[in-house]
Amino acid sequence: MSLTNATPVEVARAARIGSRKLAVLSTGDRNGALTAIHRALADGKDEVLAANAKDLEAANKAAAGGTLSQSLVKRLDLGKKGKYEDMLQGILDVRDLEDPINKTTARTLLDNDLTLSRITCPIGVLLIIFEARPEVIANISALAIKSGNAAILKGGKESYHSFAAIASIISRALTTSAVPADCLQLVATHDVIADLLKLDTYIDLCIPRGGNKLVRMVKDSTAIPVLGHADGICITYLRADYPAEKAVKVIVDAKVSYPAGCNALEQLLVDEAALTTNLPAVAEALLQKGVSLRCDPRSLEALKSKLDAHSAALLQPASDTDFDTEFLDLIIAIKTVSSVEEAITHINTHSSHHTDAILTTDSATAKSFLAAIDSSSVYWNTSTRMADGQRYGFGTEVGISTNKIHSRGPVGLEGLSIYKWVIIGDAQVSAEYGAGGKSWKHERLPIGDQDVARNAEERELLRKFRAEKGEANGAGWHEHGIGIRK
Amino acid sequence: MSLTNATPVEVARAARIGSRKLAVLSTGDRNGALTAIHRALADGKDEVLAANAKDLEAANKAAAGGTLSQSLVKRLDLGKKGKYEDMLQGILDVRDLEDPINKTTARTLLDNDLTLSRITCPIGVLLIIFEARPEVIANISALAIKSGNAAILKGGKESYHSFAAIASIISRALTTSAVPADCLQLVATHDVIADLLKLDTYIDLCIPRGGNKLVRMVKDSTAIPVLGHADGICITYLRADYPAEKAVKVIVDAKVSYPAGCNALEQLLVDEAALTTNLPAVAEALLQKGVSLRCDPRSLEALKSKLDAHSAALLQPASDTDFDTEFLDLIIAIKTVSSVEEAITHINTHSSHHTDAILTTDSATAKSFLAAIDSSSVYWNTSTRMADGQRYGFGTEVGISTNKIHSRGPVGLEGLSIYKWVIIGDAQVSAEYGAGGKSWKHERLPIGDQDVARNAEERELLRKFRAEKGEANGAGWHEHGIGIRK
Repeated sequence: MSLTNATPVEVARAARIGSRKLAVLSTGDRNGALTAIHRALADGKDEVLAANAKDLEAANKAAAGGTLSQSLVKRLDLGKKGKYEDMLQGILDVRDLEDPINKTTARTLLDNDLTLSRITCPIGVLLIIFEARPEVIANISALAIKSGNAAILKGGKESYHSFAAIASIISRALTTSAVPADCLQLVATHDVIADLLKLDTYIDLCIPRGGNKLVRMVKDSTAIPVLGHADGICITYLRADYPAEKAVKVIVDAKVSYPAGCNALEQLLVDEAALTTNLPAVAEALLQKGVSLRCDPRSLEALKSKLDAHSAALLQPASDTDFDTEFLDLIIAIKTVSSVEEAITHINTHSSHHTDAILTTDSATAKSFLAAIDSSSVYWNTSTRMADGQRYGFGTEVGISTNKIHSRGPVGLEGLSIYKWVIIGDAQVSAEYGAGGKSWKHERLPIGDQDVARNAEERELLRKFRAEKGEANGAGWHEHGIGIRK
Repeated sequence: MSLTNATPVEVARAARIGSRKLAVLSTGDRNGALTAIHRALADGKDEVLAANAKDLEAANKAAAGGTLSQSLVKRLDLGKKGKYEDMLQGILDVRDLEDPINKTTARTLLDNDLTLSRITCPIGVLLIIFEARPEVIANISALAIKSGNAAILKGGKESYHSFAAIASIISRALTTSAVPADCLQLVATHDVIADLLKLDTYIDLCIPRGGNKLVRMVKDSTAIPVLGHADGICITYLRADYPAEKAVKVIVDAKVSYPAGCNALEQLLVDEAALTTNLPAVAEALLQKGVSLRCDPRSLEALKSKLDAHSAALLQPASDTDFDTEFLDLIIAIKTVSSVEEAITHINTHSSHHTDAILTTDSATAKSFLAAIDSSSVYWNTSTRMADGQRYGFGTEVGISTNKIHSRGPVGLEGLSIYKWVIIGDAQVSAEYGAGGKSWKHERLPIGDQDVARNAEERELLRKFRAEKGEANGAGWHEHGIGIRK
């Protein structure tokens, strides 16, 4: 990695050239670079923390002056117990994940000696713009190298010294590896974001990590595809049949465990029958955690009659805008709906298509909800806070996407990969096929998985084995409708 | 389908609402709509051809006046032998493809009774802008319905009557099906493209099908993701070892079989050793087919000394711009390179990342080429004209993408699908995990494929069976490097 003062065009062109070398390195070469970075950052902990202290000092001054929030200062602090070690471990975790590139994901025999393969490959050059949180640089660098992508990183000014120290250590580590240093560049100059966002001939994908304002600015000002989410308006739909104890547990976690998270709950839809069954317990628990409840008229009336006077006095009426707001705070909007269809329509209209959930014991209702909700993550009987790359088993994530194409939900290594189509032939040509000529075979071929039956004989072997054990062959593993079995 | 004069916002909003209903229809309901459309268009052939005749009459007048090309007139003609029947058959072909949605493509056990699934689903609302070629409307409609997407279609004015007739027939057919009519809308009003391109809150993906100018205009004026390609600058790299006879066959097909196609060959890179082995035969064959050869100084000199005087006199010197031009005509630019590395660098710089090929018998050279070329399709020993959805076995295609994300190369049903993440749990919450709490299991589960070994016992069954037959279990199906076995 180089900490660079080069012009945006120089940076992007160098990254593009570096990316082509990185793309053809072996798994071992890429993993070796991550091992080197890990070791260098472990050895350089004191150097990084000294730089981080400078950022913290400036941030504390700004916070005292009221120009920076305390939560931002907290995010800056790399010295917090275990944070640096977590950052180091994250690099090794990414290194040890399965290589996402050079994987054959489909093979078709087009004709004799004419095979089509779909092979995963890196996207190319990533532009990653992030605010504060200096440990993100190590995270993102690891994901970029592992997936064979070059990355241009632009951090927030609050963590400048921390970024610079980490960048110079990573830079030294890369010189001992096969990865060209230009594949990771930290742009140090100010006010270059607008210029970088114009370079769509060199940059293939932009990932903004930060608040709503940053993401919207990026989306509105570039022809480069942008992966991420501007808002996290997550909604949970509570049905009357769901046990109050479980409802309390799930909803309190979703709202309270990290209210500033994009996967935090912002709205609760309540089936009218639930107003008198499980909603009162949920409302009471939320109030005890200090959450402000903004209620529509029906839920307000129901709760006022069910809660004690003290709690009832805390309830607030909801305004229309509350159902289009990301509070990022201990506030929740509550709305009564008469049917699952009304809940679905409300969520498809008002959620930010990030993560939405239903709480019910009824399988048919849950399945129609899971099928109809148009969001990147849809849950049945769990907390919206589950939406996270680490929790999904991706090791780590570059962000959470609410896009409708490419990658949806938490984005890990797979979201940083694409594929190319490869044909290997023996001088067959297009004009030989169709209209009285040769026919295409179009046979699906196995794709490098030893656990897949390769031919009719092996399929029959599995079928018989299962029949002898009384197991279903096909149907048990499929599901109709939403395609899920519990 | 409705042929609509509604405002762009009304069209897009209705499509969005319709898309949510379409997304939850069963495979049978969607296929049933395609059967109905097929029958209605078969019955309505006379009506469509009568409308088509009006378009043809106007087009012939315009062609006589010099304002429309003859090739465009030819593309308009639905009465051409077999064209209407091909269009009808295309609808059935798409109907009979595997359903791309509601497929579980990954499953992870996060914890006991807590399962994460990745399930394919439609993207939502497509905007498809196309020039001439009236049969495309049936094609695209079939692909949209099959993949559960609503589509707004805007055709060129030259085929207005044909489009209108097809649209009104499809509209009548849909009323007998489960698919809401608003899911397919043909916009008849003029000058609405700019307005439609602004509606990124309703429209999820735009697919322009037409010339370079249309595609660039669309890409430059919308925040909606655009799938497609502006240019098709395809390059083939000829090595000296490749038999002249095969080289002639492949290169003539790539250049001559359909020069106006985006997958037609525009440049030939020639290894310096090939100047005197196979290039002369290739050049001679191309000249005989009427192709103009624009040669760099080294290939010009070599060919002049090898070809007879008549042929040599036809050779032209290449200019620099010839190596960045999509000729779409019987013209080819020829350049000499000294190494595979030089060929790779030239292609990664000058091709449009559509389809590029190498012709060689040397496996190591071919594999390094396949790995290093950053194009959506990369071929070894075949013609660039193979890049086509029908040839790839996709049934048909909505276009060919040179994007770096989502879908690359010919785009069929899979490119019109995305996925959502579904978690089914039993009141587990995020705060229970990590930091002294419960651990994630993150076990990969089988994904609804009866041909996959489900457990250690079944894997052992396959392993033993293969051992008895003397077959390799794992390695034979993998490949290192580019991940391909011939």
